[in-house]
Amino acid sequence: MDKKEHRYCVIMCGGIGSRFWPYSRARLPKQFIDFLGTGRTLLQMSYDRIRDLVPHSNILIMTNERYADEVRAQLPELAADQILFEPARRNTAPCIAWAAWHVAARDPEASIVVTPSDHLITREAEFTRSLLDGFDFVEARDALLTLGISPTRPETGYGYIQVGDQVEGDFSKVKTFTEKPNLELAKVFLATGEFFWNSGIFLWTAASIQRAIRRHVPDIAAVFDSAEPATYRNPAKEREFIDLAYPGCMSISIDFSVMEKADNVFVETVTFGWNDLGTWSALYDLSPKNSDTNVTQNCNVLSYNSSGNIFAVRGEKLVVVDGLEDYIVADADGVLLICPKAREQEIKRMVTDARLKFGDKYE
Amino acid sequence: MDKKEHRYCVIMCGGIGSRFWPYSRARLPKQFIDFLGTGRTLLQMSYDRIRDLVPHSNILIMTNERYADEVRAQLPELAADQILFEPARRNTAPCIAWAAWHVAARDPEASIVVTPSDHLITREAEFTRSLLDGFDFVEARDALLTLGISPTRPETGYGYIQVGDQVEGDFSKVKTFTEKPNLELAKVFLATGEFFWNSGIFLWTAASIQRAIRRHVPDIAAVFDSAEPATYRNPAKEREFIDLAYPGCMSISIDFSVMEKADNVFVETVTFGWNDLGTWSALYDLSPKNSDTNVTQNCNVLSYNSSGNIFAVRGEKLVVVDGLEDYIVADADGVLLICPKAREQEIKRMVTDARLKFGDKYE
Repeated sequence: MDKKEHRYCVIMCGGIGSRFWPYSRARLPKQFIDFLGTGRTLLQMSYDRIRDLVPHSNILIMTNERYADEVRAQLPELAADQILFEPARRNTAPCIAWAAWHVAARDPEASIVVTPSDHLITREAEFTRSLLDGFDFVEARDALLTLGISPTRPETGYGYIQVGDQVEGDFSKVKTFTEKPNLELAKVFLATGEFFWNSGIFLWTAASIQRAIRRHVPDIAAVFDSAEPATYRNPAKEREFIDLAYPGCMSISIDFSVMEKADNVFVETVTFGWNDLGTWSALYDLSPKNSDTNVTQNCNVLSYNSSGNIFAVRGEKLVVVDGLEDYIVADADGVLLICPKAREQEIKRMVTDARLKFGDKYE
Repeated sequence: MDKKEHRYCVIMCGGIGSRFWPYSRARLPKQFIDFLGTGRTLLQMSYDRIRDLVPHSNILIMTNERYADEVRAQLPELAADQILFEPARRNTAPCIAWAAWHVAARDPEASIVVTPSDHLITREAEFTRSLLDGFDFVEARDALLTLGISPTRPETGYGYIQVGDQVEGDFSKVKTFTEKPNLELAKVFLATGEFFWNSGIFLWTAASIQRAIRRHVPDIAAVFDSAEPATYRNPAKEREFIDLAYPGCMSISIDFSVMEKADNVFVETVTFGWNDLGTWSALYDLSPKNSDTNVTQNCNVLSYNSSGNIFAVRGEKLVVVDGLEDYIVADADGVLLICPKAREQEIKRMVTDARLKFGDKYE
């Protein structure tokens, strides 16, 4: 059996993208949007990137029931049993655990790449090569591998990974995971050459991640160990079990619960162009600008005395703007946001304020 | 026969309201909008004001064919022959001439009040009394009467009427009509007590306005004299005649072509609250403000660090705004405008730019 046959790809696709509200909405988050105007949504682009890397039936989408129709419509190639529905939002650790137990029950020798569905990756050939190398690495040892992106600027919006001893080629032990730094610290990180952006893309064998979860988050492991492997091979029984058991998992990230605690964590340092599309400013920075340095998403803009803005407007809309600098103008599905780019960290609070004042209809 | 039976009201309702673009649109101009959130559109409010002043069947709406459905929907009380459709836009002189010939053919003793459909009038009892006095005045003499509003501030957005010799009570000869003054001149106008705002509301007998049009704009009179009075009494024949003849009229205002030239022009000075709703700033000024001094039309607004704005948004929309001062934010039917109030005189140019760049779909 070719080693490719044991390789799986898990695309996590349950996020609600609230930082891009109102353009990204709880009912249609950013992974389901053609965010870059390429004709493919971010989820579709994520799928396209890994399609030839693993056997087609080894691709799994982890998402929420409310996005079932959207996922099916965007990826009609997938069989019904390739889409797993989380009955509740519980952050990444329970999601990744379920995927591991699910895959292990089918193939005890499986290795897995876990990837978000809403990031931008520009150099796909390099991405493919990095993942193939990563599979080889984790299949040869009991390792939890995370991909670290070579930083190109002192970015304060990302977490960083400090590399330790080199193991081979691009692979090193992880020394520390860091929180988002301030600008001064980010400049130091960049200068040392030891720090890499934490991409949230992971590789491991099913056995390694199960072992790590059993050791570092036994409560979550116990939930998934409470079903027989046969349950994970029967879609109806698995669904019934998950609907009951999954909501009982604690809500915690895989980074915090496992990666920052385990001693077999490695980083592959990679150089494919990457952006987590985590903020409006990030999207502005990487988007092509018009002659006024404005960025437009999906709309016609007539601008006067205006620069440095990003306009993201759903529908065939015309935006006419005068005297506006460095703003986000986002308009979609019943909500118009006009907010300085420098204040975008307040958007989550605005969503909360809107909910308190008007209920959930604008979420 | 009661004198009321000879009184007619002509509501001019064919304007396109481009100064309020995109909230007011060529396909649904401001007179058809519930602009003040009262539950009645400006046209309906205009109708309500004059409904009891003249016999119901003596009310005429002058509008454009494209607004036929809207007028019928908003004023279902009207019979089909009470709505006259201009086949082309030709400013006020041809419109008023047609109305005069139409009414005169039915009732040679008719007197007429002509009123715009898109102004705000707040003191309706005083309005009614002023119009009844005005009818009495014009029925007693060969007079062209215009209503002059006592100014309450040095407004630079209106034309003014200077009063001459008093005839009786609130009625005087008109000395001059003036263009919109600058602020300095407007302050002088206010101080003298001789200047009144030109409201665009006129009263006259059908015979008087016909005589004045024949004398001062004989080209237009000739068009309407080219049909027999019987034509104006037969809706199908009148329609056929107007569709052919009306587009041949020159496009000119009644003020410029008749009122500024005739020597039998009088002004009734009145004090009912009046605003021509001609600019966003005027609308802002007269609208109730929230605690942040923002004005909202028809939408929910969450504002942060924002004041002095007017938000006019169609549909059940939420506007979330941060760091915006003294702007117009207007969103309707596929167009979003964000423009400083101080730059609103540029809006007409923006509409033109939009047409040049994207065709007429955003008009």
